[in-house]
Amino acid sequence: MRPVYLDNNATTRTDPAVVAAMLPFFSEHFGNASSTHAFGEHVGEALKKARKQLQALLGAQFDHEIIYTSGGTESDNAAILSALETQEGRDEIVTTTVEHPAVLTLVAHLEKTRGIKVHLIGVDRQGRLDLDAFAAALSPKTALVSVMWANNETGTLFPVADLARQAHAAGALFHTDAVQAVGKVAIDLKSTEIDMLSLSGHKLHGPKGIGALYVRKGVKFRPLVRGGHQERGRRGGTENVPGIIGLGAAAELALAHMEEERTRVKALRDRLEQGILQQVSHTLLNGDGDNRLPNTANVAFEYLDGEAVLHNLNKAGVAASTGSACTSGSTEPSHVLRAMNLPASALHGALRLSLSRENTSEDVDRVLEVLPDIVARLRAMSPAWAAATGDASAVADHV
Amino acid sequence: MRPVYLDNNATTRTDPAVVAAMLPFFSEHFGNASSTHAFGEHVGEALKKARKQLQALLGAQFDHEIIYTSGGTESDNAAILSALETQEGRDEIVTTTVEHPAVLTLVAHLEKTRGIKVHLIGVDRQGRLDLDAFAAALSPKTALVSVMWANNETGTLFPVADLARQAHAAGALFHTDAVQAVGKVAIDLKSTEIDMLSLSGHKLHGPKGIGALYVRKGVKFRPLVRGGHQERGRRGGTENVPGIIGLGAAAELALAHMEEERTRVKALRDRLEQGILQQVSHTLLNGDGDNRLPNTANVAFEYLDGEAVLHNLNKAGVAASTGSACTSGSTEPSHVLRAMNLPASALHGALRLSLSRENTSEDVDRVLEVLPDIVARLRAMSPAWAAATGDASAVADHV
Ligand SMILES: Cc1ncc(COP(=O)(O)O)c(C=O)c1O
Ligand SMILES: Cc1ncc(COP(=O)(O)O)c(C=O)c1O
Repeated sequence: MRPVYLDNNATTRTDPAVVAAMLPFFSEHFGNASSTHAFGEHVGEALKKARKQLQALLGAQFDHEIIYTSGGTESDNAAILSALETQEGRDEIVTTTVEHPAVLTLVAHLEKTRGIKVHLIGVDRQGRLDLDAFAAALSPKTALVSVMWANNETGTLFPVADLARQAHAAGALFHTDAVQAVGKVAIDLKSTEIDMLSLSGHKLHGPKGIGALYVRKGVKFRPLVRGGHQERGRRGGTENVPGIIGLGAAAELALAHMEEERTRVKALRDRLEQGILQQVSHTLLNGDGDNRLPNTANVAFEYLDGEAVLHNLNKAGVAASTGSACTSGSTEPSHVLRAMNLPASALHGALRLSLSRENTSEDVDRVLEVLPDIVARLRAMSPAWAAATGDASAVADHV
Repeated sequence: MRPVYLDNNATTRTDPAVVAAMLPFFSEHFGNASSTHAFGEHVGEALKKARKQLQALLGAQFDHEIIYTSGGTESDNAAILSALETQEGRDEIVTTTVEHPAVLTLVAHLEKTRGIKVHLIGVDRQGRLDLDAFAAALSPKTALVSVMWANNETGTLFPVADLARQAHAAGALFHTDAVQAVGKVAIDLKSTEIDMLSLSGHKLHGPKGIGALYVRKGVKFRPLVRGGHQERGRRGGTENVPGIIGLGAAAELALAHMEEERTRVKALRDRLEQGILQQVSHTLLNGDGDNRLPNTANVAFEYLDGEAVLHNLNKAGVAASTGSACTSGSTEPSHVLRAMNLPASALHGALRLSLSRENTSEDVDRVLEVLPDIVARLRAMSPAWAAATGDASAVADHV
């Protein structure tokens, strides 16, 4: 049976059309962008086209507002460190408790080593940002506000356009980690006040090892990686030509499929969620029901270990995740679900199912066929379940 | 006619065998290294093998001494910034006037913004390091010595094993930018005292967008890019799986071809150089004749503009370079040749011809067929040549 891939928030399959677009630039047109000879001839043109493709997906006003990086993490690091260097007299950062480690690890380090004050704004049970606390944290000392567009674990969308306006009113720069949003929801940067935006190729059916940082024209920027004149002096290093071209092709495909993501993929996700909720009792839906990515389902099975569910799903040919890829393998509950104050009974039982345009109705059928049985089987062996529900018989049989 | 590629120090063709090794990891085994499901199944194993392949090329004692990065520039930046953070009470850097911009741009920035004292050690007419000045610059204040293994423009090799010992005697860390050396000369890190080494995939027939920083076991390291736990917490960001696997395959090929590089490629380079020197008068050979990469020829034609020579070579189907790729396009003479104190008559007339294992004897024949005529033609039109040699007739005809 064809295995089912529902771990698209961790990484996506590079679209074969993307690979095809990249291929000539490995061994045929392999010259550098700056070289004047035949081997670099088509390279400059192809890079220009790729930049336009990404610009279109972002709705950026200028194509030179894009700086290519090695991925989302580098983009996040570059944005945050640049803001601290350019915003003189301001040494505070406002961000959230549910950001990706690419932001949280860095700001914790800056707090410890450089005395930067970091305001971590919390979320409610639905993962919605505490807007009062956010407003209260802004001050003339705020150098940067960094708030993710979409959460990688729950898909919850934050009102970044609004938050950017508030940041600007306080004289702060606004950065958004849009690694999970780009390609999944419509973005039109030119109609917002967002100063910087991070994205990563491999989250939108592009290749790994390439990403970008959007920096609005006029916003001061200090490079993280210094060297040659590439990217207008804002990011040194020989251009990753196949990667940039792959990201461009992926951006064009994502734009073409945006409506499908909003409708067909969302319908699949909704059917998957509803099916699970109908068939499996004591299941919670995590995230903001009204403002969510169309592709992400995060459910928590009370009195269960998500790792055990995942393991059994894997054996049944279904790939998913218990939380962000970075924390999987460790047994700590996700910092996102913790921040959302999930009940203790559900904190360890979360499962993330993240879809893409490559998923089919059959994929959803398959999960709905195997998942309820897996949960039932595991609960039948679970002392916690028995204690909570008073159903001790099954446990006695199995343990 | 098949065009001739002699710009391998700028970038190399990704070996088709390398591309073949990478391909399955775009759209088939596309899972993350950390994922537990079928899509990530072969990934962990393949990454392990790739790490071993690179370890073998470097002669590193432990495979975890390798940290993957996005390329040579990031590796250089990470090494330098880490050393400044870990070497408490030391705030001086010793490096050379002929380093790549990946080092020089950063240390100039650090000098300007952080008050780091930078000692730039010079070279002689052959490009050899001033060893007395080097020894004199070392002090208890030296945090880091960063000296390139091989120069990208002339191929001159620096005695890095010796320099590393001297750095250690002064209590400093030693880093080498080996971007041009790795894959071209034998390297056995475990028998040296080198603490950190930078390399870049696309310089050894691997892909662009991947590189590595070797950090000797026991040497303290502070990450440049912070995020998830990848690379043992030393470099955040989703692993560039195809890139890492491509670099591994390229490393294995480079090791297998090392003897060929030392003999056949070197013989081609030597014949090319000797042929040019014999056929073209007033030509200088730049670099250390005794200690050079086997693949690099750097010649300077007096009273000529290297850009004009390059342009005509391109038209004749020969790709080369006037200096480092990063400065080509600008008309400033290269900082390396300036540092070597080339006579003014030759400073603008340099041409770099850099070979690889993919070059053939016919490639050399072709250059020797077209290059002397190109130089003669350009000189016949050159007032500077006329003034210097007293041959005014030709100029009168052409100007
Ligand atoms: C000696 C040297 N160091 C560093 C680099 C930078 O490597 P990359 O462009 O892959 O970042 C290069 C090549 O451009 C180089 O030749
Ligand atoms: C929200 C978010 N930000 C940042 C990242 C980091 O991106 P990358 O791993 O490509 O560096 C990820 C994915 O891992 C993510 O989901």
